[in-house]
Formats: sequence, structure tokens, C-alpha cells
Amino acid sequence: MAATRPFRTSSEHTEPLGARYDCIRRASLALAAPLTPEDQVVQVMPETSPTKWHLAHVTWFFERFCLAEHVPGYEPVDPRYDHLFNSYYYTVGEMHARPQRGLLSRPTVAEIRTYRERVDEAMQRLIEQRADDRAFRDLVTLGLHHEQQHQELLLTDIKQVFFANPLAPAYEALQTPPSPPPMPLDFVRRPGGEFEIGATGKDFCFDNETPRHRVLVEDHALGSRLITNSEYREFIDAGGYREPKLWLADGWAKLREPGGFTRPLCWSVDVSREFTLAGWRELDPHAPVCHVSFYEADAFARWAGARLPTEAEWELAAYETPVRGNLLDAGYLQPIAAAAEARARHPIQQLFGDVWEWCASPYAPYPGFKPLAGSLGEYNGKFMCNQLIVRGGSCVTAAEHIRATYRSFFYPQDRWQFLGFRLAKTL
Amino acid sequence: MAATRPFRTSSEHTEPLGARYDCIRRASLALAAPLTPEDQVVQVMPETSPTKWHLAHVTWFFERFCLAEHVPGYEPVDPRYDHLFNSYYYTVGEMHARPQRGLLSRPTVAEIRTYRERVDEAMQRLIEQRADDRAFRDLVTLGLHHEQQHQELLLTDIKQVFFANPLAPAYEALQTPPSPPPMPLDFVRRPGGEFEIGATGKDFCFDNETPRHRVLVEDHALGSRLITNSEYREFIDAGGYREPKLWLADGWAKLREPGGFTRPLCWSVDVSREFTLAGWRELDPHAPVCHVSFYEADAFARWAGARLPTEAEWELAAYETPVRGNLLDAGYLQPIAAAAEARARHPIQQLFGDVWEWCASPYAPYPGFKPLAGSLGEYNGKFMCNQLIVRGGSCVTAAEHIRATYRSFFYPQDRWQFLGFRLAKTL
Amino acid sequence: MAATRPFRTSSEHTEPLGARYDCIRRASLALAAPLTPEDQVVQVMPETSPTKWHLAHVTWFFERFCLAEHVPGYEPVDPRYDHLFNSYYYTVGEMHARPQRGLLSRPTVAEIRTYRERVDEAMQRLIEQRADDRAFRDLVTLGLHHEQQHQELLLTDIKQVFFANPLAPAYEALQTPPSPPPMPLDFVRRPGGEFEIGATGKDFCFDNETPRHRVLVEDHALGSRLITNSEYREFIDAGGYREPKLWLADGWAKLREPGGFTRPLCWSVDVSREFTLAGWRELDPHAPVCHVSFYEADAFARWAGARLPTEAEWELAAYETPVRGNLLDAGYLQPIAAAAEARARHPIQQLFGDVWEWCASPYAPYPGFKPLAGSLGEYNGKFMCNQLIVRGGSCVTAAEHIRATYRSFFYPQDRWQFLGFRLAKTL
Amino acid sequence: MAATRPFRTSSEHTEPLGARYDCIRRASLALAAPLTPEDQVVQVMPETSPTKWHLAHVTWFFERFCLAEHVPGYEPVDPRYDHLFNSYYYTVGEMHARPQRGLLSRPTVAEIRTYRERVDEAMQRLIEQRADDRAFRDLVTLGLHHEQQHQELLLTDIKQVFFANPLAPAYEALQTPPSPPPMPLDFVRRPGGEFEIGATGKDFCFDNETPRHRVLVEDHALGSRLITNSEYREFIDAGGYREPKLWLADGWAKLREPGGFTRPLCWSVDVSREFTLAGWRELDPHAPVCHVSFYEADAFARWAGARLPTEAEWELAAYETPVRGNLLDAGYLQPIAAAAEARARHPIQQLFGDVWEWCASPYAPYPGFKPLAGSLGEYNGKFMCNQLIVRGGSCVTAAEHIRATYRSFFYPQDRWQFLGFRLAKTL
Repeated sequence: MAATRPFRTSSEHTEPLGARYDCIRRASLALAAPLTPEDQVVQVMPETSPTKWHLAHVTWFFERFCLAEHVPGYEPVDPRYDHLFNSYYYTVGEMHARPQRGLLSRPTVAEIRTYRERVDEAMQRLIEQRADDRAFRDLVTLGLHHEQQHQELLLTDIKQVFFANPLAPAYEALQTPPSPPPMPLDFVRRPGGEFEIGATGKDFCFDNETPRHRVLVEDHALGSRLITNSEYREFIDAGGYREPKLWLADGWAKLREPGGFTRPLCWSVDVSREFTLAGWRELDPHAPVCHVSFYEADAFARWAGARLPTEAEWELAAYETPVRGNLLDAGYLQPIAAAAEARARHPIQQLFGDVWEWCASPYAPYPGFKPLAGSLGEYNGKFMCNQLIVRGGSCVTAAEHIRATYRSFFYPQDRWQFLGFRLAKTL
Repeated sequence: MAATRPFRTSSEHTEPLGARYDCIRRASLALAAPLTPEDQVVQVMPETSPTKWHLAHVTWFFERFCLAEHVPGYEPVDPRYDHLFNSYYYTVGEMHARPQRGLLSRPTVAEIRTYRERVDEAMQRLIEQRADDRAFRDLVTLGLHHEQQHQELLLTDIKQVFFANPLAPAYEALQTPPSPPPMPLDFVRRPGGEFEIGATGKDFCFDNETPRHRVLVEDHALGSRLITNSEYREFIDAGGYREPKLWLADGWAKLREPGGFTRPLCWSVDVSREFTLAGWRELDPHAPVCHVSFYEADAFARWAGARLPTEAEWELAAYETPVRGNLLDAGYLQPIAAAAEARARHPIQQLFGDVWEWCASPYAPYPGFKPLAGSLGEYNGKFMCNQLIVRGGSCVTAAEHIRATYRSFFYPQDRWQFLGFRLAKTL
Repeated sequence: MAATRPFRTSSEHTEPLGARYDCIRRASLALAAPLTPEDQVVQVMPETSPTKWHLAHVTWFFERFCLAEHVPGYEPVDPRYDHLFNSYYYTVGEMHARPQRGLLSRPTVAEIRTYRERVDEAMQRLIEQRADDRAFRDLVTLGLHHEQQHQELLLTDIKQVFFANPLAPAYEALQTPPSPPPMPLDFVRRPGGEFEIGATGKDFCFDNETPRHRVLVEDHALGSRLITNSEYREFIDAGGYREPKLWLADGWAKLREPGGFTRPLCWSVDVSREFTLAGWRELDPHAPVCHVSFYEADAFARWAGARLPTEAEWELAAYETPVRGNLLDAGYLQPIAAAAEARARHPIQQLFGDVWEWCASPYAPYPGFKPLAGSLGEYNGKFMCNQLIVRGGSCVTAAEHIRATYRSFFYPQDRWQFLGFRLAKTL
Repeated sequence: MAATRPFRTSSEHTEPLGARYDCIRRASLALAAPLTPEDQVVQVMPETSPTKWHLAHVTWFFERFCLAEHVPGYEPVDPRYDHLFNSYYYTVGEMHARPQRGLLSRPTVAEIRTYRERVDEAMQRLIEQRADDRAFRDLVTLGLHHEQQHQELLLTDIKQVFFANPLAPAYEALQTPPSPPPMPLDFVRRPGGEFEIGATGKDFCFDNETPRHRVLVEDHALGSRLITNSEYREFIDAGGYREPKLWLADGWAKLREPGGFTRPLCWSVDVSREFTLAGWRELDPHAPVCHVSFYEADAFARWAGARLPTEAEWELAAYETPVRGNLLDAGYLQPIAAAAEARARHPIQQLFGDVWEWCASPYAPYPGFKPLAGSLGEYNGKFMCNQLIVRGGSCVTAAEHIRATYRSFFYPQDRWQFLGFRLAKTL
């Protein structure tokens, strides 16, 4: 049985902004509902944040960038929160060190809830007052997308809290559908040429999706579905982790560090079970492999005589399919096997949902990219170095949050997100 | 106003063991009472532990060494707790890594309370059954003293949790008495000779206090009271932290590390205020300096043309005074200034309470020392390397827990305990 | 007066391979000639290697990939050198750890010279025998280009050995020409469109320069010369290193580490002098800034309202100018100011020599890239992650070694090479 | 065949100071004679120093503390050497960082030899001039003992340089005598009581050997000889390194670090061979085990049902035997097996030479200890924390340098010196 909590889809086109604000803000609390106060304090690695920090930070985002900027004489709920809940906006001021978010027992979960309520009241008033201010509405919309990003992180981060605990607690007693018969992996040929990718800016998008621009793409083929657990297990069995010629130099160095990678994160030593938000369970052989780094995805591809897709190849394929898949709204919170009916609708499956797909493309600015003005220019642009593009959202991404042009990015060694991959080939 | 919670003194001589067990176990919960569940999860440095870990570990100690050993067919409350709440008894099995105790959101505070209740019930039954078993009674008594040690740690560790938090929460709104007129620092001459120190074993003691043995002591003088904040501030003002000739080599290296010592822990940068369990407050110039490392105590002593006392010198002086002072039962939870009336009673003040006093003596076995048999031999003996002796208990040590022969020990760089010092001189 | 050692240019088109081999191998020894045996042992950072290691490693390259593969029954000079002098060819076997190359006092400089002689004799015999074997000749040519790469590293690495030494030894008493009047910085407009870049493979190239392929380039402008020391000093004076909004996130983090960047490597604290291979000297205000990381180049560009060029923009400009500039053969071993006469010949100066120019392009495979077969596939391909492209060679690159299509690459924090930059703008 | 280089014994009682100075200074150069310049540059761990640094530092000691203090208007050979060759005298000024001594290619070996010559000339003049100045003569004598300490370090440190090199070079082709029949290990009973230990100061001694003072010693027994390789191998075979109850807590932690101890330093993985200054050779089963840490010695003792001796127990035994044994002058440079004839002379063998013997005593000041005045007070006193006493000298200690009262000291994890142990028992 899938999650019963309502991850209701709210469309920015059909719903008043105040209602949408209310809906998305409630969803964050709903996601935290199964957690004890103790769960919400812990940070198990520098990349992750405690649940209560997520809940406070997204609130601070609204307070700092909407209320403080647009309400004359606004008095912050607690001026010290500016320091505690600023994530990385140095132009706004110095912040509490990221790896030390888990050292903060206060404010408590209850105090953060109060903080949320006070900001929400002020926000609703402001949304009403500024109903005709397009720039302000865009700012609130950005804040809501920002909150949805943190909803995803809330789930990925609490998964690591539970995984780090020998008691192996479950977030919820979820069940995924029985695995259907395995789908063959085909390589779907796609002609090259000159195309356009990137967001037009008509609908909401992040600055890093712009400008829409021309790209040259070579003739290529894309894998018809994601790589599965059983395929990845073959790679392990074939000695993939012991064969230097398969690996990027930095990936091989990573493998050889004490405690280096020997299998996907969250897999048992005997590669038979994996830890999920529902606790430990048998690996579904046909479900997409997840929690692999770029290095592992890249090494697998080389082993398989293939490569990872570029982000342009991925995006062009994604234009041809609706934004549908095993996303947060499905309530599985875990990747599931590709099913035959979907293949019938579109030859390239699983583009959206299940796992973010590692691309061969370094995260770099599109030609002519301009970051947002002011402090929000720090949102995306300053990370355009050392990271790789991932595409398509995952089983914990809200359906209304993802789109074909959406660019997310991680360091090549990152694994704690729902990260997987599909293969591609140059023809 | 001092703390109102009842730190009732319970004597092992006058009270039945079951009542004493009950009293000490309740005191632990009373100490945790002002804390939120969030407070009880956090660990800010590897040396400290979360409150809830302390509450569980002391319980595990009874479960593992009393119940599991003496109740036939005993079923542990949760067999996995053996791994989680074993502190350092390798002979019992492998334990959860110490620096990662703060990564455990589960068991929750409530679950640990249940754990305590279940163990307490079984313990009370067993205490009744074994009323005539002297060895068993000694074991329970050891467990109770162990719990009292962790009561102290619970307070010192939560102080660091609050100190690490920019919101600077207070454990309780305590007040210390107004500072009396400053007491002069005298050096009280004491003749050398051959003496005996160490515990006879008639009353409860830890194994490391035995055997009682002869020592040679030179003629010397002991400072009549502890070194105060204002005296320590003079050392800082005189450039003490910048003068290499005052420091042990390892201490000087410590100072020069990034973030090295420049003042006692918990002092404000401008050396005017200190963080206490009641929050930030002005430094009381006449209160004993605390949260200094051995290196700092030793450097101050050299600057002052003196040295730290040996543990034998300290113990021999302590024999002459009753076990009385600013201990946990006083409820101040903070060192306080020496007062004239006490000096009238005894020329050497503040031997018990306020702060643990750094001694010049490395922590080493007494001649002929034998650790306890079995796993409890790991209690004290294996730490007899790299650490220094501290004596006398502190403002968070239970009065009934401390005694003249009591040997505690810390690494020379440790500062998070209530650690201070008095001077001595060779004549 | 410039260096008098003969960095004779040897062309692969006009000279027999054996003579060319001899010439390039001698040049390596000539470069080491001013050094004492002690100088040749030291490694001051993991990225660098001792001189004698360079001299041995390039020899091992010939022994391992030419002699061992093509001389039946070849007996290695010392079979243990396979382990010591393998740099990073894991498919050949495990190697001595890179950061520990400076721990090897043996083989001595003299023993390595003997190693070189023995390999050179065998190589000359083999070159003669295989005069008609095109694949073998290509392999030797690759080995010679490899040796030239290490000639450059020999100089950059010994510079750091001397810079790390408080005695500040000089490699040689070189002089650079008097600084001419400063050249204005113009932005030369260049039309976008679809172009081709990459090597055709007709002449020698590394695998990473292939395949030649189409690229789309936007209308843009390229800086007419490199950024100078005085321009960079303005950036420092304007607080560039203290302004977070100018920096990539990872660059800002680097700045804030203990000992983080505050000025180019090899500059004096007062930013008036720089350390060169001729020792300390006044900064030439009009010479190109060097020893800056990608982070610093990128931050400067943002401060200047510009950006760094892409590698395609750079390469297309480089096609239009001869491979000429302040390269190793000029003998200055230090970047020099742009001069008016060169501008007269071509509006975009200093494309070759002086400093490698940081590009905005991450080091990634060209579309359809195939690494060399076998172990030599590890030469370039496995580094295509986490690094950035640099172009154009430096004042310590052999003139015959560099070309318009040449792609070198460094991590964004690297600074020990002669690394500088020019600006670009999107129109 | 033992070393042929003359480690001539020079007595301070019978020889003029100038001749003695000359003799000891020459001995240092003789020890470096088998080394190439390359050998003399390398530093393989922070605790060790390059040969040429040792040769320069001991010279600086004379220049700084004799010449600069006692020659009016003395001009240092190179004022920058003050920074480079100061080891740890912070009161004299800031010094080059210890772990970076191996990064200095200059001054070269030849330049340091010149430095030595210039200082030696000035010293000989000064020794002549000050023939009647007792304090000055004592200072020179201290400098000579200091030089002898570094002669020992020169050998221990170069051993590690060779051990770290896969080519396994030998310092010299030394041979040790054939192993005699094994000697039984007896425990020699020794009565307790009140005794005196420490130096009287009549003859040369270091400040840390004073003052002579009374000690109480319990009845005890001392092992008749050092623990041997074969005995230590038994401990390994019995699982000693896997049994936590045998280890001090900090030792056990050390074992569990990546690359933690599993056998003595310099032993082969299969515990059959050891690396010596003559290269790899079979372990002599009856020779004393060496290159063990205090942790290992202590764990072995616990496993054997014994303990390590205190320094008082050791010193009192050493008073009864002449200073004779396998010291540097024997020329073996490696511990050798105990022989029957020596036992006949004294029931407790091998007190001097072979290996420094770990004692149970932390390195602490003797009661009433006063360090030397001025900067030389930094010689010994500031290390009296965190270290353990070792006694008796080793196979690379000059015979005339060692004595019964001599206290050396190392950190409990140190192993690169010739460190071994004997057992003791409390009766």
C-alpha cells in the first residue's frame, strides 16, 4: 500500500497563489508528520540537513526575501534566525556552518512550527496585498519551488538518518507494486542535428535553465529504460569495482580511500537487500539501481560499451513525453521497475521520476546565462563548477515541480539522493 | 536562587540498597527534566554524549552486568541496545562508535524512559532476591556510582550543547550567591615525609584508588584556595598565551593550531563574560576559573612561579577536611567564590567541589594495582596512559559520590568539564 | 640576459626520428643541469614530482611502452623501476604512491642518468630497426611529446621547491626584457556561427584533441591580451578576495580555509614582489598575472563584468595566429609584458606562451571521443572530470610542443603551473 | 663483520675539551659518510629529520648558544640558518616547521659541511680562550652530548628513509654475531625499600636527571634479559593484537586506525624478516624485539602476566652493572641475542645497549626539578607530558653517552627508535 498522505498536485495555472502557498506549506509539515522530534534534529553528513532545519530554512527564505523586502518596518520573528537558517546566501550575511546544523537542539520542532505559522500569516496578508505585483508573485512562486526542493531533501536526508541507525527505523510502512516481468533494454536511435534546449521563461523556471539556445547533437541512441539493480549486480559480479580501466581517475581514487565505494549506498554487504524509507527489504532486481555516484554510473557505462547521455540528448527526448512517472505523488518513495504498458506509450521510459539520471554533462552556464539579480543570484549560478547535471526528478520529487528543462546538479561522488542512470551510445 | 530540584543525599550506610537505587535512578531523570527531547539527542564533540545516551547507557550497565549475569534466562529489553549503549567494554562486544552517538535519533527519549522502567523493575526484584549477596550488592553499588558519574557528565555535556548554540539556551535560571570580599591567596606550608594514600577498600571505592600504599612527599606549600577568574585574567593580560617559555611543548602546539586556545572555554572573546548552565553572565572575578586545560593550568603555575600539586599532596590535605563544598547538592551548578567563614574552619579551602583540580601527576596505577576481574576491569585501568589526575569533584558532582581518595583523570587538552586548579610550591 | 642553454627546436617533419629522440632527451638533462642532487629529490606538494623522478619516469615510459613491448625478451634495467616510475597506469600495475615520490632517495641522480643511458641505447637501436613501422614511430613520437610535458613540469615543480625554501634559491640568473609601455586592453569582436575545432590527426596530437567536430559559437569578444599584474592588483585592492558575490561557491570555500588564497601564489604578502625561477623580483605591472587558480580567474572576470573564454572561442582565435610567443625557447622562464609590435601583427596577442589560459570549459570528451587503445588509453581520458581546460602553453612550454588544438587541464584550485587568463564577453 | 668506522670512545675526564670536541664532531661526519647527498635530504615522517638537517642543527646549537653568546660581535655564518636549524627553542625565535625539514634542498650537503668547518674553527678558538671558564666548558660539553643524541637520531632516521624505499638500500653491509643458544628468561627478585635515584651532578648529566632524590620501591622482580623476537612472535601468534583486554584504551584505538599496528615496525608481513641498517634479513629469534611502541610492550607484559619496570626499578638495577653492552661502539647497529657469558657476570643482562627499554613511568619532573636557565631550559623540561620513560640506550647510542641515570622519553605510539622492553613483576 502506498503512502496515504495527500501529496496533492497544485497547479500554478489554475489555483490562486494564496491557496497554492497554503497547500505547499502544508505538504512540508505533512512530510514531517511521521517523525519524532528526535528524528528532526539529526544530521548524519555535511551534505544533509536536519528535518527541522529544512522546515525553518524554507520559512526564512520567505521571511528574508519576501517579508523583509516588501513589508515596511517588518520585524523578524527572531532576528537570530537570519544567521541560523540562511543556507548559503553570503551576500545576505554570514551563516551558521553547514556541517553543524545537527548541533542545534534549539529552536525546537514546536518553536519552528510557531515560526512557520507567524511567517505564513504575514505571507498570506502580503500575497493578498500584492495580488497585482507580478514580480512579487514570481518571487513567491520561486519560494514555493524552493520549498518543494527542500521537501525532497527532507525525505532523502531523513532516509540517511534512519540508515545510519542500527535500529533501522522506517519512515513509513510503504509498499511498492509487485515487480512486473523484466523489460528488455533497447537502444532507441535518435538523429542528430541542430536543436534548441532550455526554458523559454514563459512558465516558471530556475535561472539556470535559461536562456533557451541552440545546440548541436550527434546521431545517438538512448537506453529505453533505466539501468536496474540486477544489471548493476552483474557489473559488481564481473569485478567492476576492481578494474581500474573502467574508472575515471578521481573515481578510482575514491574507491581506494578507506571505506571506499564497493556497492551502491544503502545496499547490504551481500548485495541482496537495500535500505528504503520503509526499512530494509529484498532488492527488486528490475527496479532502477539508485544511490550510485557519477563515478559508478560512468564506470558501469564504460563496462557496458556505452556512455551516459548528455543533458541535451536527455532534454530533447524528454520533450516528447508527458511529465509522468514514479514521482512523489505516487507515494512509493522508492524507484520501481519499468512496466510494459508505459513502453507501449513511449519507447523511452522512466525519463521522469524514480531516480535523477546522471548525465555526461558538467554543470555549466548556458551560453549567455545571467543569474537572478541580487542575493538570489546565489541560488544556482555559483555552483557551476565541479558538479554534474542530473535530470528528470526522482520518486521523492513533486510531480508539479519537475519538467523537461529542469537542471539539477551534484558532485560526482554524491550518492545520498535517489541517483541512477540510463545509457546512451554515439552512433 | 539555587536549583530547587532535590539532589537528595543518599548514604549507602543508612539506607537500604533498593531505596538507594531508586533515589539515584530518579535523580538522573530529574536532571534531564528541564530538557526538551531535541536537547537530549545532540552531541557537540566526540568527548561528550547526548543526554538520552547517558540515560540509556547507565541502564544498560545494570542490565548487562547485573541482570544478564544474575537472572537466569534473562531476556534483554532490546538485544540491539547491547551494541548501542555499550560505552567502551570491548570484552563484552563491539560498540557503536563514540563520535556517532549524536547520529542516533532512536530510541527516542520516551523509549529510553521505558527501557529504564523495565530495567528498574527487574533490578528491584533482583536486589530483593540477592539481599544477602555481598558481591552482588557491591556490583549494584558500583552501578550507582557509575550512574552518578554520568549525572555529572549529563550536565557538563548539555552545557556544551547549549554553548554551541547561537541562541544560548539556559538549562535553568539559577543564581549563584553574591561574591564575597576576595580572599587572599596564601601558601600553606606542609611538611614532607612518608605517608600513606589510597583507599583501604572498607568503604566503596573504585579499583584505581587501591591499594593504599606508602608515598614520599617533600616539604611543600599548598595554595589556600583555587585560582580565580581575575587572577587568570591577569595571566592573559600579561601575555601568558603568547609566551612560549611558559608552556609545555604539546600545549604550545595546541595553542598554535587553527582555533587554538586563547582563553578558557566558555569565556567571551573580550574575557568579560562566561557561559554557564544559566546562560551568559558577567565573570565573577573571585570565583574559581574553570574550563581550563592542564596545559593552561600548568602554564599559569609556571608564570606564577609555582607548580601544580601532586595527587599525593592533594589527598593528604584532603584527609584533614570534611567532604563539603560547592557540590551538586548546593544547586549552583557553577563555581563560586571562596568565603571567609570556610577559611576559618580550615586553612586550605575549596578542596571539594567547585572545580576538579588538575594535579601534576600523570594518571598511573598505584604500586600493586589490580583492576577488577572480568569486563569491569576495563572500567578504569585501561585509561592509565596519556591522562592527568584531577581531584576533588566539582559543582556538578554529587556530594555523596566524592571522597579524598577519589581519582578522576582527563587528557591534558580537555576543557569541557568543570576543570580548574590550585597552586603548590616545593619548599 | 635570457637562458643560454640551447632549447633547440626540433621538427618532426624535417629531422630523422633518432636525431629528434636524441635532441629531446638531451634537453631534459640540460634542464636539470643547474640543479644539485639535493634539489632533484624534493617534492613540496602532492601535485609536483622531484626532478629525478621526472627524469626516470619519462625513461620508464619508453622502456615500458616501446622496449618491453617491441624487443623480444627485453630485460628491464631494473624490474623494480616499474613500480617506482609508473605514474598512473593502473592497467600496467600498482605504482608507488604519488605523494611519496619525495621520500625516495634512491635511485640516485647518477643511477637515473645511467638508467637513461641504457634505455637510450636500446631505443636508438630499436628506432633504427623499426624505421618503417609507422605505428612504432607514432609511439616514439608520443613518448617524446610526453617527455616535453615533463620538461615543463620539471621547471614548474623545481620552482615550487625553491619557493618553499626560506633561502629562496634561483634556478638561473635569468633576466626578462624591460617592460614596454602598457598595451590597452581591447575587446575584439568575433562573430558566432557553426565552426569546427579539434585535431584532424594528420599531424601529431593527443587523443583528447580528437575528433575534429562541429561547434556552435555565439557572437562574442575576446580580450586583446592577457590580464596583467597591475590589473590583478586592482582587483585585490578593490577587495576582490573579500566579496563573496564574485566567487564560485567552491572557490569561496577555498578562500576561507586556513591558509586560503589571498593573492596569486608566489607573490609577496605586500603584493609588490614575486618569486620567479630567477628568485624574488619586483612585479612587472604589465606582465601577465600568473599562478592564479581558475577560481581567481573566474572571480576577476566577474568583477570586471566579463567572463572567461570557452575553449572553442580560444581555439578559433588561435587558428588565425602563428604558434609564436614567450615559450620555453625564448628562455625567459617567466611571463613578459605584451609588446606593441605583436599587436600590429594580430589584434589578439599572447595566445601562445607566457601563461596557460584558463577557459570557462570543463575538461570533457569531444563528441565521439575514443581514447587510445590499451594502457595508453589512461593517458588523458580518465581525467575528464573535475578539471578545467587551459590553452596556449606557457613560458616553460617547448615551442614545438604546443599548437592551437592542444588541450591541457587542471583542477580549479591548481596554481603551481604558469596559469593566467584573458577575458571574454558575450555580445 | 661489524662496522669498521672508528666510533672511538672519548672520555671527558681524560681528554682535553678541544680534542674531545674534534673527535665527536668528526664522528658525526663519519656516520654520514656512507650516504649519498640524496639520502641526506629526505624526511619520511614528522618525527624524523634529514641527515643534513641533523648535521646542521647540531652545528647551529654551538653557533647559537656558544659563539653568539660568547664571541663579542659574532657574525653568524648565515643569519637565515637561525630559522632553518633551530629545532624547538621558541625563546630564541620562530623556526622552520618540523614536518617540512625534508622540503629543503638547500643548503646542500656541501654547504652544510662548510658551515660545520667555519663553526668548528671558531669553536676551537673559543675553547682555547675560555679554557678556564667552567660554565662555558659545561656548555660545550652539553653541546657535545647534544651532538651524540643526534648521531643516534641520524642512524634511526636514515633507517626509516631506507625502509620506506622499495629498493631497500642498506646503510652498510654489517653482520651481527651468530645467535648463541637461547638464554632462559628468569625473574630476578629484588627487595623494596627507600632508595635514592637521579644524578648527583658531579659528572655531566642532563637537567632532567636531577635532583637526586629518595624513592620508595616495592619488592619486585626484574626480567633477566630483554624480550626476544621469538617471544614476541608467540604473542602475535596467540592473537595478542586482536584481544582488546590486553591493551590500553589509546593503544587499542591506535590498532584500529587505518594502517594500525599488527606487528613491530620494520617486520615483514609474514613476521619472518626484519629491515635493518644492513637491509632485509631473517629475524634472529633470540635477539631482542625492537621497534615496538609502549602500547605493544605494555600489552605483551599484560599477556605475559607481568608488567613493565618503573624507572626507579630499572635505575637501581643499572647501578649494579657497568655501562657495557651492544652500543654504537660495538658497530652492529642492530640488537643482538643475550649471551651466556654476560649472565655469568650479572644476573640482569642487556640493561645497556640493544634497545631503549620502555618503562611503566610517565616522563615527569623529579621532585624539586629545575630546568636549566634561559633558552636551554627548553631542552628537556617542556616535554614532561604525554611521554613515557625509556632507559639504557640502544645499539646506536654512543657508549660514553649513556649512564644509569639517563632518562630518555618517547610518545607511547613511537616506534622508529630502537625500542624494546623487559618485564617486571610486583612480588
